[in-house]
Amino acid sequence: MADQKKLVAEVTSMDEDFTQWYTDVCIKADLIAYSQIKGFMVIKPYGYAIWENMQQLLDKRFKATGVQNVYMPMLIPESLLKKEGELVNGFAPEVAWVTQGGTEPLTERLCVRPTSETVFSDFYKDDVHSYRDLPRLYNQWCSVVRWEKETRPFLRSREFLWQEGHTIHATREEAEERTQMMLDVYSDFLAEDMAIPTIKGQKTEKEKFAGAEATYTVEAIMHDGRALQSGTSHFFGQKFSKAYDITFTDKDNQLKYVWQTSWGVTTRMIGAMIMVHGDNRGLVIPPRIAPVHVDIIPIQQRKEGVLQKAYEIRDMLSGFKVKVDDSDKSPGYKFSEQEMRGIPLRIEIGPRDIQNNVCVIVRRDTFEKTECPIDKVAETVSSLLETVQNDMLERARRHLEEETFEAKTPEEFARHFENQNGFVKAMWCGDRACEDKIKEMYGVTSRCIPFHQEEIAGTCVCCGKPAKKMVYWAKAY
Amino acid sequence: MADQKKLVAEVTSMDEDFTQWYTDVCIKADLIAYSQIKGFMVIKPYGYAIWENMQQLLDKRFKATGVQNVYMPMLIPESLLKKEGELVNGFAPEVAWVTQGGTEPLTERLCVRPTSETVFSDFYKDDVHSYRDLPRLYNQWCSVVRWEKETRPFLRSREFLWQEGHTIHATREEAEERTQMMLDVYSDFLAEDMAIPTIKGQKTEKEKFAGAEATYTVEAIMHDGRALQSGTSHFFGQKFSKAYDITFTDKDNQLKYVWQTSWGVTTRMIGAMIMVHGDNRGLVIPPRIAPVHVDIIPIQQRKEGVLQKAYEIRDMLSGFKVKVDDSDKSPGYKFSEQEMRGIPLRIEIGPRDIQNNVCVIVRRDTFEKTECPIDKVAETVSSLLETVQNDMLERARRHLEEETFEAKTPEEFARHFENQNGFVKAMWCGDRACEDKIKEMYGVTSRCIPFHQEEIAGTCVCCGKPAKKMVYWAKAY
Repeated sequence: MADQKKLVAEVTSMDEDFTQWYTDVCIKADLIAYSQIKGFMVIKPYGYAIWENMQQLLDKRFKATGVQNVYMPMLIPESLLKKEGELVNGFAPEVAWVTQGGTEPLTERLCVRPTSETVFSDFYKDDVHSYRDLPRLYNQWCSVVRWEKETRPFLRSREFLWQEGHTIHATREEAEERTQMMLDVYSDFLAEDMAIPTIKGQKTEKEKFAGAEATYTVEAIMHDGRALQSGTSHFFGQKFSKAYDITFTDKDNQLKYVWQTSWGVTTRMIGAMIMVHGDNRGLVIPPRIAPVHVDIIPIQQRKEGVLQKAYEIRDMLSGFKVKVDDSDKSPGYKFSEQEMRGIPLRIEIGPRDIQNNVCVIVRRDTFEKTECPIDKVAETVSSLLETVQNDMLERARRHLEEETFEAKTPEEFARHFENQNGFVKAMWCGDRACEDKIKEMYGVTSRCIPFHQEEIAGTCVCCGKPAKKMVYWAKAY
Repeated sequence: MADQKKLVAEVTSMDEDFTQWYTDVCIKADLIAYSQIKGFMVIKPYGYAIWENMQQLLDKRFKATGVQNVYMPMLIPESLLKKEGELVNGFAPEVAWVTQGGTEPLTERLCVRPTSETVFSDFYKDDVHSYRDLPRLYNQWCSVVRWEKETRPFLRSREFLWQEGHTIHATREEAEERTQMMLDVYSDFLAEDMAIPTIKGQKTEKEKFAGAEATYTVEAIMHDGRALQSGTSHFFGQKFSKAYDITFTDKDNQLKYVWQTSWGVTTRMIGAMIMVHGDNRGLVIPPRIAPVHVDIIPIQQRKEGVLQKAYEIRDMLSGFKVKVDDSDKSPGYKFSEQEMRGIPLRIEIGPRDIQNNVCVIVRRDTFEKTECPIDKVAETVSSLLETVQNDMLERARRHLEEETFEAKTPEEFARHFENQNGFVKAMWCGDRACEDKIKEMYGVTSRCIPFHQEEIAGTCVCCGKPAKKMVYWAKAY
């Protein structure tokens, strides 16, 4: 057990220093390594395997709605980027510029894509002619670069992996429907696969995406009560189609501009997974996205028959991703490694268990132990994995509820954020000035105007004028 | 049929102008579109779906050999790139340089990765300590940028998609074995999945990868008899481990440098597929990588029951990727679209067929027609797809044989390349000067020193001095 303590001791307690705990887990659970460039991380095999699982599940959900994958150029000419004014104002301060290709300086700077509305629009311009060509439902998986000042693994990095969906439609209604549909895909994926419940809503003008007519978001709450924007879906109206001249001949033979959307989620969701489910022993990975479901750890593995039984159990679990830890480390060390890596189930098997024809299954999320007859191991693992997945979502839902508050008055609002984090539902007059003031005073931002509106009070929680909307407010990552 | 002629007429005949035929097919089969930047292409949904299938099959083959996926930073600091002299000399003239991040000029230039030996080496340096940490078998799927002067879709572009595998090992033998193993994976994948036979061998000093101790290659022959390097696997010895200080403590407690490999294939293989299998009607896609296996085309689809029967047949083919072309285009137009896109099988179903309870299945590769009872459609499609896959490989093998020649003397060699393309097996003294001369005189390069050596003659086909090796020579893409 000395070993185990040592490994665990290297992780800061989350109650002591949540930020340091987060970084420790990223490193100790073998998710990432830092590179020589600030904000550019190496995603190690274990971290990447989680991302691959997430990609696969999401990609299937996208394709079920008719989306097709494509690949667009990574570099964007400055002139192309500048065609839509709001987007370039939003992104120009944070792009990386290529100025030299081979031995020669370029005649025009090229930026490494921070997002690809501009290249998609430039492509659509020639790709679409008639209403028969619509809709176009495209997506790409790629990396993007944004020159952030403050960086943290997964949460805010200068390069990150993501998917960006870009669609064009013949009518406003269809584009709006698609914007909502993809937000639902994100919220379903986060809940069902990542066990992360979210609040769905619309971003305020201040917080919306540069160039969008409306931005919708799914907002999650982390263990420390701070919010994390976990996915966004944008309705562009005809802003880009007018700037990039994307027209089509409609059924009525009139030339019209297309209606456009984009939507994206990133490796940031891995950060959400860490901060929603993790504990002081490390990661806790929801079974559906876990690279390894079961870690079989032999006890007294040098005794005759122990390792063999461990392999037998592995072979009985052929439908699952199973690892037998037959390394020469101590069982205690192996336990803490399995816990650090958040593997949902651990099976302990030793000489006495073998005598009794049982093994012990330990849940990572609750540490609950089940003694299981060996011939029932497959069905028990199957049902435990489902239970773990469901319980993780339930616990996260309870936490979201516990971390959701109301403030009717400026005083209540102020008092809350003096002592606490969490979502605060409070009324808002709709003025940018109040958002700015709240940010300045409390470091709190409007997370979203939730689809599900409640009448908490009659007046704005900042200025006291008549309220227009209920908003979720929080300190956010 | 007027429609059909029109679509086909837009593709240049491959015998008239092979280069133009190639470009026409890339565009007309909807694989790519050009972007605003030379050498940066848009990979459209149909092209990307082929790449996704190739990725999936390759990735499975990699993982079966123990390889794990990771993700490394896209940008590389100049100082890091320069640590290994040969690599930087090989790549520096063709990299894209980022000199500005956000609003500020960078203190050090960063290049967009042209290949990632340097970042992997920098990472391994801290990732590996003991022989227990070895081997590391990593791979990444990403895009890279090389500032090529001449560009052509898939074959040579400034940005391309690829995988790059990077492994480190405790011993020379193990690293050499891995280099060969991955070459075999490529050659098996190309033959079994893409129906492209290749010649396996070693590159000469002149043609090997910058920084490698040895480069191995799989070389394919295109329809026009020109060769295409289709995948490479490199053995680095300890060159990078010494330059980047990647050491480990071995079992004998000695500090040692690791042995390293890298290996990669790119979207260039799609170019090979086009040029090996395509014909004057467009693409011919091997079933294993085809995005659509069967295109069901109803004849007189407005007649009662025709469309319904087409959907019924689709539902009987649930194990395959099937499309029913129920658009309002003419059957002739649909035929030529299906042919242009290289969909392996077409099913024609019209009122008379329905009366006889049959449909007609047409192979894309041979245009051979099979009348098939409707209740036998699933098993017939299954066996036809297998036959098409095998026949495509067989035809490509015959073509490779037919395009392989021998030259015993300089005169035979010269005479051959005056009139013809193809591989020429000929002896070589081992001197770079002869390679240079052959390149200069005939535009012909050494493709590889094949593993399977033959004693064609005793003297070099260029200088007449005693020969050391048999080499495959060809004009190449």
